[in-house]
Amino acid sequence: MKIIIVGATGTMGKYLAAAFEKEHEIVRVAGKGGDIQADITSTASIENLFRQTGAFDALISTAGPTYVGPWKSLTDGAFRKGVEGKMMGQINLVLIGQHYINPKGSFTLISGAVTHDPQKNFANASAANGAVEGFVRAAAIELENGIRINAVSPTVIENSPQYFPYFPGDIPVTMQQLEFGFRKAVFGANTGQVIKPY
Amino acid sequence: MKIIIVGATGTMGKYLAAAFEKEHEIVRVAGKGGDIQADITSTASIENLFRQTGAFDALISTAGPTYVGPWKSLTDGAFRKGVEGKMMGQINLVLIGQHYINPKGSFTLISGAVTHDPQKNFANASAANGAVEGFVRAAAIELENGIRINAVSPTVIENSPQYFPYFPGDIPVTMQQLEFGFRKAVFGANTGQVIKPY
Repeated sequence: MKIIIVGATGTMGKYLAAAFEKEHEIVRVAGKGGDIQADITSTASIENLFRQTGAFDALISTAGPTYVGPWKSLTDGAFRKGVEGKMMGQINLVLIGQHYINPKGSFTLISGAVTHDPQKNFANASAANGAVEGFVRAAAIELENGIRINAVSPTVIENSPQYFPYFPGDIPVTMQQLEFGFRKAVFGANTGQVIKPY
Repeated sequence: MKIIIVGATGTMGKYLAAAFEKEHEIVRVAGKGGDIQADITSTASIENLFRQTGAFDALISTAGPTYVGPWKSLTDGAFRKGVEGKMMGQINLVLIGQHYINPKGSFTLISGAVTHDPQKNFANASAANGAVEGFVRAAAIELENGIRINAVSPTVIENSPQYFPYFPGDIPVTMQQLEFGFRKAVFGANTGQVIKPY
């Protein structure tokens, strides 16, 4: 299976690429580094990405820039980080990528527990995640040719201890649990689901 | 209670204004008409709105422009209608309005059932609603001085029969049910809730 991983140089993307490359062809996509560079906040850059990858079987996105910081600093301008990044960046990967993906292919986007279990400083992520999850459910009934779409929604992950203080009492999701979440999305048969790998 | 209704000339806003004006001071806000004109896709216009209203006790928003149409036409450009309208328009009413609202005041935004129960042609609304609902939960733990925030999420409403064909089998929400949903949000004590008035 030819799998594109967007965000391949990040904590999650790196782990998933290493886990899946044993059995699959992986195309690593990142802002810098990887096999192909792309800026998901630009539709032109996303078009250019898929022209380079050509047809593929699965796209995994772990690319979720959002504004993390004090509520008092959360202006419209700050909010745009998550709107253009985690929300529209990922939505555009699907709106554009659907023209390149093989029949029965799949899209798997990244969401996060703060959609339903908010934490201080993460309102931008709560909104962006909510948009991604709503979009995933809607796209699942629109995509044709057996193309599926799901989201994986972890809490804080074990390999990002710098975020632990923001998630008091949340049991970190292990990297293996995260991998299993993406395995379920990519190799399972469900669509329109938000998979919680814990 | 001084209640601002944004979207006051629309189907929902008109009904709610008539229902609440018997006991409360209503400020009708709309793109055209009403007491004050505002364009919620502009932060400058929203600032200008609150400078005119001054302090208030509750804000109700029924303003939810989104793109409704075939999936094949849902490009990044079309998607922006819901991003700037129902999503950021309503979020900015809160981010800016919080500096004008009285202690123990409340914000009530409009969402919709397609967040979790998608319908064809409504992917833009599913995403915008998901963002609004995620934001409402996050803002509820950030807002200070006892200020509350909730969303009301109806299915198709009885006074908008033009939408019935898009919602096969959905029992329309009556205008009175809708009113009760907003009553619960404005006059109740909950916060961070998505109220389904059916």
